[in-house]
Amino acid sequence: MTPVSPSSPTAAPHDPAAAFPHSEKRYLAGSRDIRVPVREIRLSGGAPSLSVYDTSGPQGYDVMQGLPDLRGEWIRARGVERLGGSAARRHEPEHQPPSRRAAESLIPASLQRPAFRGTGGVTQLHYARRGEVTEEMEFVALREGMTPEFVRSEVARGRAIIPANINHPELEPMIIGRGFHVKINANIGNSAVTSSIEEEVAKLRWATLWGADTVMDLSTGRNIHATRQWIIRNSAVPIGTVPIYQALEKVGGVAEDLTWEVYRDTLIEQAEQGVDYFTVHAGVLLPYIPLTADRMTGIVSRGGSIIAKWCLAHHQENFLYTRFREICEIMRAYDVSFSLGDGLRPGSIADANDAAQFAELKTQGELTKIAWEYDVQVMNEGPGHVPMHLIKENMEKQLEWCGEAPFYTLGPLTTDIAPGYDHITSAIGAAMIGWYGTAMLCYVTPKEHLGLPNRDDVKAGVIAYKIAAHAADLAKGHPRAQAWDDALSKARFEFRWEDQFNLALDPVTARAYHDETLPAEGAKVAHFCSMCGPKFCSMQITQDIREAARGMAAKAEEFRASGGELYVVR
Amino acid sequence: MTPVSPSSPTAAPHDPAAAFPHSEKRYLAGSRDIRVPVREIRLSGGAPSLSVYDTSGPQGYDVMQGLPDLRGEWIRARGVERLGGSAARRHEPEHQPPSRRAAESLIPASLQRPAFRGTGGVTQLHYARRGEVTEEMEFVALREGMTPEFVRSEVARGRAIIPANINHPELEPMIIGRGFHVKINANIGNSAVTSSIEEEVAKLRWATLWGADTVMDLSTGRNIHATRQWIIRNSAVPIGTVPIYQALEKVGGVAEDLTWEVYRDTLIEQAEQGVDYFTVHAGVLLPYIPLTADRMTGIVSRGGSIIAKWCLAHHQENFLYTRFREICEIMRAYDVSFSLGDGLRPGSIADANDAAQFAELKTQGELTKIAWEYDVQVMNEGPGHVPMHLIKENMEKQLEWCGEAPFYTLGPLTTDIAPGYDHITSAIGAAMIGWYGTAMLCYVTPKEHLGLPNRDDVKAGVIAYKIAAHAADLAKGHPRAQAWDDALSKARFEFRWEDQFNLALDPVTARAYHDETLPAEGAKVAHFCSMCGPKFCSMQITQDIREAARGMAAKAEEFRASGGELYVVR
Repeated sequence: MTPVSPSSPTAAPHDPAAAFPHSEKRYLAGSRDIRVPVREIRLSGGAPSLSVYDTSGPQGYDVMQGLPDLRGEWIRARGVERLGGSAARRHEPEHQPPSRRAAESLIPASLQRPAFRGTGGVTQLHYARRGEVTEEMEFVALREGMTPEFVRSEVARGRAIIPANINHPELEPMIIGRGFHVKINANIGNSAVTSSIEEEVAKLRWATLWGADTVMDLSTGRNIHATRQWIIRNSAVPIGTVPIYQALEKVGGVAEDLTWEVYRDTLIEQAEQGVDYFTVHAGVLLPYIPLTADRMTGIVSRGGSIIAKWCLAHHQENFLYTRFREICEIMRAYDVSFSLGDGLRPGSIADANDAAQFAELKTQGELTKIAWEYDVQVMNEGPGHVPMHLIKENMEKQLEWCGEAPFYTLGPLTTDIAPGYDHITSAIGAAMIGWYGTAMLCYVTPKEHLGLPNRDDVKAGVIAYKIAAHAADLAKGHPRAQAWDDALSKARFEFRWEDQFNLALDPVTARAYHDETLPAEGAKVAHFCSMCGPKFCSMQITQDIREAARGMAAKAEEFRASGGELYVVR
Repeated sequence: MTPVSPSSPTAAPHDPAAAFPHSEKRYLAGSRDIRVPVREIRLSGGAPSLSVYDTSGPQGYDVMQGLPDLRGEWIRARGVERLGGSAARRHEPEHQPPSRRAAESLIPASLQRPAFRGTGGVTQLHYARRGEVTEEMEFVALREGMTPEFVRSEVARGRAIIPANINHPELEPMIIGRGFHVKINANIGNSAVTSSIEEEVAKLRWATLWGADTVMDLSTGRNIHATRQWIIRNSAVPIGTVPIYQALEKVGGVAEDLTWEVYRDTLIEQAEQGVDYFTVHAGVLLPYIPLTADRMTGIVSRGGSIIAKWCLAHHQENFLYTRFREICEIMRAYDVSFSLGDGLRPGSIADANDAAQFAELKTQGELTKIAWEYDVQVMNEGPGHVPMHLIKENMEKQLEWCGEAPFYTLGPLTTDIAPGYDHITSAIGAAMIGWYGTAMLCYVTPKEHLGLPNRDDVKAGVIAYKIAAHAADLAKGHPRAQAWDDALSKARFEFRWEDQFNLALDPVTARAYHDETLPAEGAKVAHFCSMCGPKFCSMQITQDIREAARGMAAKAEEFRASGGELYVVR
């Protein structure tokens, strides 16, 4: 099998100019040659352009070469050592059937990279606690519109993380914490049933084009290692994985055959490759498993169910829990962040906020503090399926039990009855929990519960979650959030149709919807639209009467200034 | 122009059997021959069938004949008198240009109906206050799973309304109030720019097929009267209108030329036709207009802007306010309910919860109490565009100021930045405000702000709002809500794929999404799906280990019963 070609028809038309006409990538300049990308939206009629957060990454690079090395110099100036050989060569053969050794041939030489390991402290938490503002922190500060010192102090307190493996130099640093923009994650990944490497890389680029802040590679099928290499080398956003999936592949899919050694080697293999955060289901303890026995939907986390099966088969405690300190030692050597998995999250409304779920969350809190002992960055994963009135309790308990580490939730879905529309059932819960303080929202696509998302589904999921995250930013009062709404609403009120389209999360769709009813170019300068027609246009009428209304307001002001009383409403 | 044919290609395939395979319409039987429709979803494997609320109306009737007369006998047993001639003939000619008199020819004789007017009290509020349980109340009680006495008392207190014009005998009664299922409204209606009568009837049937509880006919273009007649005669759900739209058409679209007389005649014309509720913007007072002068988006309600223009042109108080008692007298004669319009609702995040909005809401409260003096049923319309953290205040003020009359909100949209996806930006706000106590949610389609919705958009809007309403029912703890989620989740956990599809809000889409990745029939009994493949299926693993987990749980119980301590979590 030869490496797939990125020019095949299924490769993504990852073209920002087509997706966002009238936008250009610009850079904010910091010290130390730091350049932070933004997307600048050009407006008409003298309105000032608007710059928005941009995750689309460097453009114009060949997927066979990977993205440029942005952080290499920063990293090599720290205490790191270069490792010999390729990660795939070091880790794959002993645990893989011979047929799979060919996997490495799927990684062209142009996508191979040397691997590094920290010799001393190299994590962002390490530097933050020492009072040092890293290049990554300054990058993030410019990106968020906060001071570098605020970024540093939030990282130091464990309230925010900058997932940034030293082996992922292509990364444009970003921060996850409730004092910053709410972030969204998109899951991609092949399974045994379907999908190919090139499709996954195309999905990565497509998801980040629309605004995914991190991407998790949840591959479980063939070529896990090669798929991941392609993805990381082409990703400007942090990549997360669930290492137990690959460990399970290595033991032929038999959960009982998993061992600490296989798992440990998998962690090292992925850390050397450049994965930025690992989901680790260390909170699924043996005594909690019986708490799921009478649930409506049992255990719905893949990782959680694998661990539960292993625990019951051996009647032993979860080795991710018993070996947790060893895991911390591995992760700190590369600055891989924890995403402490919620293996017992509820998979249905009936199971929300039950004893199993909260027992695990409490253990996540215990583990969070252990990871911090090792200067390893941590976030906590959360549910799942939760009705609206039970959402807040999740946030409150997580803040209390987990020392304010960032919360990272899957939705939550607020009802079970709408398969096919779970991007919507979950965007409701995601927006709410984002407002309450969740730092990152894991997207759900329309295919959730039904099948693997295609490119349209990935886009639908990302956009639903950009909406949820932005709604949360507004509700939390993020200082930069409302400027975007104001720019769009002003364009709407002033009948600047082109600006209204260009300021939309999805300009091409907005324009196409408009043109479906009023395709003529003249309609885009018209002072009405197809909804009401010219006579019933409230905005046009408002503009007609605005002067009169302002006159009345001025008269009232004059009257009040002269000591009179303002209108008495009858 | 001859009447359009319902068999044209744009007529809706209003086919419940195609949309909901494995469902059948059934009837719950009450006293007095009352039969309440439900949709019964048949399940496999011995699982009990599930009956859900059904708005699709009687089936198999010719759109040229209209629906059967369900309530005629109930109504004629009350104090009503029959009026002579057709409503169109009585009201149209004097205010319409000759060219439009032909409009009546668009109504076939088979869709003409005699009109009635109450001679004494005929409103549901009138009977409720007298302690009388009407047929409509009993119908609603069966439909909601509440007692007839509870329904009566909620209507009597003004906390719920049963919009049911005595000239709409085709109506299947429904209730709007926060003690009941949260309802959703779909807007349809032609405009000067586009759309035809037959499309509007098709949209009505399509919207109610997917679950719209009421439909507003917002037509502003040609043939308003005829369009409405077609719609009402074919509608089993309440129809709402904004009479000022037709009044404005009668004066050639010149707001300044509106008069009380033209408006009054329009109210009577529509009341005789059978409209169940009127949006009346009586709370837009002259002194409030200056409060909108420096808004980001001014006045965005069509009705509000028309009234504002009239008030400023004449420098007179809104005639809907000064004539409000006369309006009440007209509406009580037919049992038309008020939907007190929010003409000054915010049209952007920047304008949410401002002085203009709340001034009008307070006046709505004053008017609500006046309407109640006349035994006229009332609900209050609410916003609009509101960020999440400002939503609750809307509900709290409405409850306090408007005496707990039902609240009926448009969304609210929680951000302005996603034109093309405003069914999602608003479903977030709608679900939340529904949980807080809003009784009915006016849907928003993906075309909001951009164009007129087509059938796909209507469906997308209705389904997003069914999700929001159901999520709110769950959060409020409606006794019937969770059974649906439980049935679906149980089917999911037991790999009853067909049942999972059939229990979905949109079964055909759910099945199609599944089949996109795993089309084989065998996959529909498989104990895994395309997302994870067989080895990674958490639900299969859970089932494998369930017996062991139950054994552990039983042992723990035994241990505890013998006086021991349950697991101590390390």
